[in-house]
Amino acid sequence: MQDLLKRIDDRIDECVEQLAEFVRIPSISAGADVDSSQALQEAADFLVGQFTRMNFAAQKIQVSADTNPLVIARSPGFSSARPTVMIYGHYDVQGVDNPRAAWTVDPFAAEQRDGYMIARGASDNKGPTFAHIKAVETMLQAGNRLPVDLLFVIEGEEECGSRALETFVQNGGLDEYAPFLCTVISDTSMYGPDRPSLTLGLRGISYFEVSVRGPKQDVHSGLFGGIVHNPNAVLVQALAGLYDTEGQIAVPGFYDGIEPLSAEEKRQYEALNASEQDYMQELGVSALRREAGYSLLEQRWTRPTLEINHLSGGSPRTVIPAIAQAAVSARLVPGQDPARVEALLQECISARIPKGVHVEFSHPHSSPAYYVDIDHPLVAPALSAIEQGFNCQALVTREGGSIPIVVDIAARTGAPVLLVGLGQITDNWHGPNERFALRDFHRGMRTSAALLHELGAMS
Amino acid sequence: MQDLLKRIDDRIDECVEQLAEFVRIPSISAGADVDSSQALQEAADFLVGQFTRMNFAAQKIQVSADTNPLVIARSPGFSSARPTVMIYGHYDVQGVDNPRAAWTVDPFAAEQRDGYMIARGASDNKGPTFAHIKAVETMLQAGNRLPVDLLFVIEGEEECGSRALETFVQNGGLDEYAPFLCTVISDTSMYGPDRPSLTLGLRGISYFEVSVRGPKQDVHSGLFGGIVHNPNAVLVQALAGLYDTEGQIAVPGFYDGIEPLSAEEKRQYEALNASEQDYMQELGVSALRREAGYSLLEQRWTRPTLEINHLSGGSPRTVIPAIAQAAVSARLVPGQDPARVEALLQECISARIPKGVHVEFSHPHSSPAYYVDIDHPLVAPALSAIEQGFNCQALVTREGGSIPIVVDIAARTGAPVLLVGLGQITDNWHGPNERFALRDFHRGMRTSAALLHELGAMS
Repeated sequence: MQDLLKRIDDRIDECVEQLAEFVRIPSISAGADVDSSQALQEAADFLVGQFTRMNFAAQKIQVSADTNPLVIARSPGFSSARPTVMIYGHYDVQGVDNPRAAWTVDPFAAEQRDGYMIARGASDNKGPTFAHIKAVETMLQAGNRLPVDLLFVIEGEEECGSRALETFVQNGGLDEYAPFLCTVISDTSMYGPDRPSLTLGLRGISYFEVSVRGPKQDVHSGLFGGIVHNPNAVLVQALAGLYDTEGQIAVPGFYDGIEPLSAEEKRQYEALNASEQDYMQELGVSALRREAGYSLLEQRWTRPTLEINHLSGGSPRTVIPAIAQAAVSARLVPGQDPARVEALLQECISARIPKGVHVEFSHPHSSPAYYVDIDHPLVAPALSAIEQGFNCQALVTREGGSIPIVVDIAARTGAPVLLVGLGQITDNWHGPNERFALRDFHRGMRTSAALLHELGAMS
Repeated sequence: MQDLLKRIDDRIDECVEQLAEFVRIPSISAGADVDSSQALQEAADFLVGQFTRMNFAAQKIQVSADTNPLVIARSPGFSSARPTVMIYGHYDVQGVDNPRAAWTVDPFAAEQRDGYMIARGASDNKGPTFAHIKAVETMLQAGNRLPVDLLFVIEGEEECGSRALETFVQNGGLDEYAPFLCTVISDTSMYGPDRPSLTLGLRGISYFEVSVRGPKQDVHSGLFGGIVHNPNAVLVQALAGLYDTEGQIAVPGFYDGIEPLSAEEKRQYEALNASEQDYMQELGVSALRREAGYSLLEQRWTRPTLEINHLSGGSPRTVIPAIAQAAVSARLVPGQDPARVEALLQECISARIPKGVHVEFSHPHSSPAYYVDIDHPLVAPALSAIEQGFNCQALVTREGGSIPIVVDIAARTGAPVLLVGLGQITDNWHGPNERFALRDFHRGMRTSAALLHELGAMS
């Protein structure tokens, strides 16, 4: 193992050079008006080329005409006798108009400054994905048989809904590679610089929009005020019913079934001793919203939320609007069923709509929470691999966000997903001057190699 | 009197022709990007010309460089020994882009069809104002001394805030014409066709906007959901506290001091027996909002309201917004002090803002309700004049809207304002194909002449 890590250390510059090549392909799938279909194909072809040189059986899969291709690559000597380790990543990137003027470098020049590669996609997700590819290549170059049978699945639509991959997974596209030992995904962030972490869980989500309709057109509040139901006021009263007077969630049944956090996870999150002051400064607020009995990180990672993401109705004049609209979403935790939560929320809202006023719900999307038990047999080897790769202590964390495809993959493969973030929260994903520390790329390659060794010992 | 009304009947065509001239001047003061300053001056000059021909002492008053001129005209032989009757009107009109394509005629051609003049400003407010001018002219042509001393005050900013007139009134511009018997304004609507009415009251208003600020920028609801106060949710909970669970106003003290409606007014509004079905059809709703114990018209005209006119915050994505905003307004009734109501509403909202969340109020404007007691000695003569003018029974009504300048005028002149609407609710004020029935113009002239006679007998 030490020999392998040494090999990685020796060829890091060459690997960075190849990463720059990958990053220079402007494979934007979201947030831009430009047609990037050519670049998306080019990025997929680049990956197929990489895998083919490594003697992987690699192919571009066009799931449907209007989706971006998947890249699927199976390691040489792949055998259904051993459980498969799948590595997921995505080659598509966000647009750069957010705002474009805030970029201080060409977003697709892969410029290197102060130990960082500054480019769109450097950290989300080309760099972390490429770290795995280069780690495996290094292992093969050493002439060793890979410790596990590997399946790379790299999609081109992570930033715009993962439609192709979702279809592929649901249609059984992964089934021929079963059984699976686990899936490894490096599309989360570390806890902090030099604080690498295994993300044990992600919150789920239940999102929908609600519209309350009143008069057939906006009417004058002098002429009709008092005798016509005001959609803004009705919506406000209906949504307020989701909360109690302390601002806590008051939807009957909302908390039912939530699996309690293990004492060990609870202890570890408390021990991280996250600073309220730091959060307040980052958010620019003078107080946080707290739930009694939970540490800050426990609350952020393992407690459900209920947000009103959008409000819209009328205009700042004396009108009563024809329609008022809101977007509502809950972040869910293990034990909460998204469909049930959606129904509870909508029932709670509907119950407060006066007779004769029309309410409708639209644009629902949802995904359950995901987590790996801290006592799962793969957790210790994963942490060990991270420690070998980063030469420092590895933490367990969770994340508050949701990655729906993780849930689909875990369900379809019947195996856990190990979320091994290689980038930092401060890498500016989706924002201007996205960056990836070359040091994290290097340590990511080392972690990948160590992880495959650890997993090989398990399979 | 019968002789005078006969004279009016005889010259109606000539008066319509002159009204057409007035209406053809596109004196737009609101709702258009075009520069109408030339046309506004032209309309004011047209009126000065009219008054001068009638031997009135007439002048254009430019209150400030950035306002449209007032036209002030004093009747011949004006004496401070007799109480003044003031007649108010406005020569400015709304724009025609609402939408322009919906107009089936040139808005400034003063086209006549089926007994209507179809033009912008025909009913709001050139036609009704001109009915008074032409009535007075007819009286003078008969060689009679006017039964009252008259002061015409015609502004050019009613559609955009009445700044010049407000300044003029507040600076004591009317004081030299004191004492006043009353002001006559024909800028309201009749109850219906052949149902002319004296409007006894107008609701007041208290309007303001509220902003709730959270994180310094929109943040991801996965990353920060649960630990940061969501301005949308805070705003919704704060605004919902303005209402009880039945949707009725629950602001402590809001209803305090409201003067009860007289039994006679209550009876008359009940007797009008307004149809809920008609309102529901007009509004396109399947139920009205009702307050127990009040007839439909009593509720619409004499009960206060509390509306959320505008809601805005975030976007239909999984964000927690940096700011959420609303516009709130109450329609006020006699006995409610706008400043006190504004304070009560803002206290009620502020009380529900969690510690550490910033709320601010802005853009306040307000005006108290206005009303003339049904037993006031000028009410019976006014109703009698309307009956003589229209040859049918005159009703008393109120309106739910607010005309702030009415309150200012009444306060400064220390005399009641008689609101004698000459147009119909269906005249499409501010909309396309605004119209004024020539029959209403004719009967308006008759009403004006009869009213001045009745008032002459009182002074």
